[in-house]
Amino acid sequence: MSDTTGPVSAGLLVIGDEILSGRTKDRNIGYIAEYLTAIGIDLSEVRVVPDIEDEIVAALNAMRARYTYVFTTGGIGPTHDDITADAVAKAFGVSIGVDPRARAMLLERIPEADLNEARLRMARIPAGAELVANKVSKAPGFWIGNVIVMAGVPTIMQAMLDEVAPKLKTGVRMLAETVRADAKEGDIGGPLAAIAAAHPEVSIGSYPFQDEEGRPNANLVVRSRDEGKLAAALAAVREMLASLPR
Amino acid sequence: MSDTTGPVSAGLLVIGDEILSGRTKDRNIGYIAEYLTAIGIDLSEVRVVPDIEDEIVAALNAMRARYTYVFTTGGIGPTHDDITADAVAKAFGVSIGVDPRARAMLLERIPEADLNEARLRMARIPAGAELVANKVSKAPGFWIGNVIVMAGVPTIMQAMLDEVAPKLKTGVRMLAETVRADAKEGDIGGPLAAIAAAHPEVSIGSYPFQDEEGRPNANLVVRSRDEGKLAAALAAVREMLASLPR
Repeated sequence: MSDTTGPVSAGLLVIGDEILSGRTKDRNIGYIAEYLTAIGIDLSEVRVVPDIEDEIVAALNAMRARYTYVFTTGGIGPTHDDITADAVAKAFGVSIGVDPRARAMLLERIPEADLNEARLRMARIPAGAELVANKVSKAPGFWIGNVIVMAGVPTIMQAMLDEVAPKLKTGVRMLAETVRADAKEGDIGGPLAAIAAAHPEVSIGSYPFQDEEGRPNANLVVRSRDEGKLAAALAAVREMLASLPR
Repeated sequence: MSDTTGPVSAGLLVIGDEILSGRTKDRNIGYIAEYLTAIGIDLSEVRVVPDIEDEIVAALNAMRARYTYVFTTGGIGPTHDDITADAVAKAFGVSIGVDPRARAMLLERIPEADLNEARLRMARIPAGAELVANKVSKAPGFWIGNVIVMAGVPTIMQAMLDEVAPKLKTGVRMLAETVRADAKEGDIGGPLAAIAAAHPEVSIGSYPFQDEEGRPNANLVVRSRDEGKLAAALAAVREMLASLPR
């Protein structure tokens, strides 16, 4: 993992009718968000689109033009509804076919006699892509341009992310500290806004929750890439909280 | 709920830095997806964007031009990072200010002496919007044009969705049946693709899972708005599965 000075951004494209119908509850967005944040990549946008080629192509082209990386999940299995690889090839305007390296990976797990046309779909890789190894079930993901294509099954997606992470350009990590307000959001909204305005390079978020005693409470999350600026804003937040009438 | 003949579509815009940083795991997408599907509205796209006005405005304008409805979650609380109402007003090009109806709702819960500027933010409503009542904590959501703005806290979002659902235009419900394949996706991919091609008005999805005995298995989900077409495709799928060598 190489550190660079500027921020590194990412988009995430979740592909699958089953997420949009509610049949499958996505478990990848939160995982990827946390993972990228931890390695110094800012997840800037997520989109969920159906298994429709034009929708995938349009979303991919919009996002890859905007972010350092675009990650996709879903749609790279052996059935007719797995159309991600073809859509990515179309978005990049490149050809697609069975990749001998990917076929070899499949043969590590699948007897050659069982490597029918359906299973060979999993070796269809756009021209010019690098493969992303899959320790769990062998069928690889791939990396083309700034787009990284991963499986939708969480364990496999996670293995693929571990595989690509060391090769990603990463930025200065966003530092974050959480302060429990022990106050109602409505009571601190005014002073908090003033602190936010006085610390423009620090982002301050307020997240309400109900505490153990059932009272409205809030977590204040202070974020910055600069340790000193983070500390200054944190001190201001703590001082404000300490000054509240109790 | 009024049934119409054509499909009714929806987009969902999730607003919040905390989802993109992974700090908060979204629990609304899956709930809303399932809810809308059940009442005959097709969720066609989801986007997650940060607490940045221009990003919210751009996503909202792209989605509201495309779908029958756009639902938003998040960013309508009392703190400085709650900017959804202002962004929606900007997207529609209308003014925004404290709405007397919304202020009255807040007063059902908040003593007038406590109704400071921060809390009054929750009564800022774009001109021309209808309010969406909030049984849980009173601060309302709102409905403007085809956009329905809801809270991010799941219990409150759910109460708001219950509030608007009876007023939504709904389409013919998508019918879905799930068949457990008891086969590997790679073994059924070929015949399943042929069935999908022969039943163009039916959507067939294949979702792999590991069964109780640790073997690769798949759920086949057959979906259609037409009962007869669904039954025909289902019969073809069952026949194909029954004919597999065991």
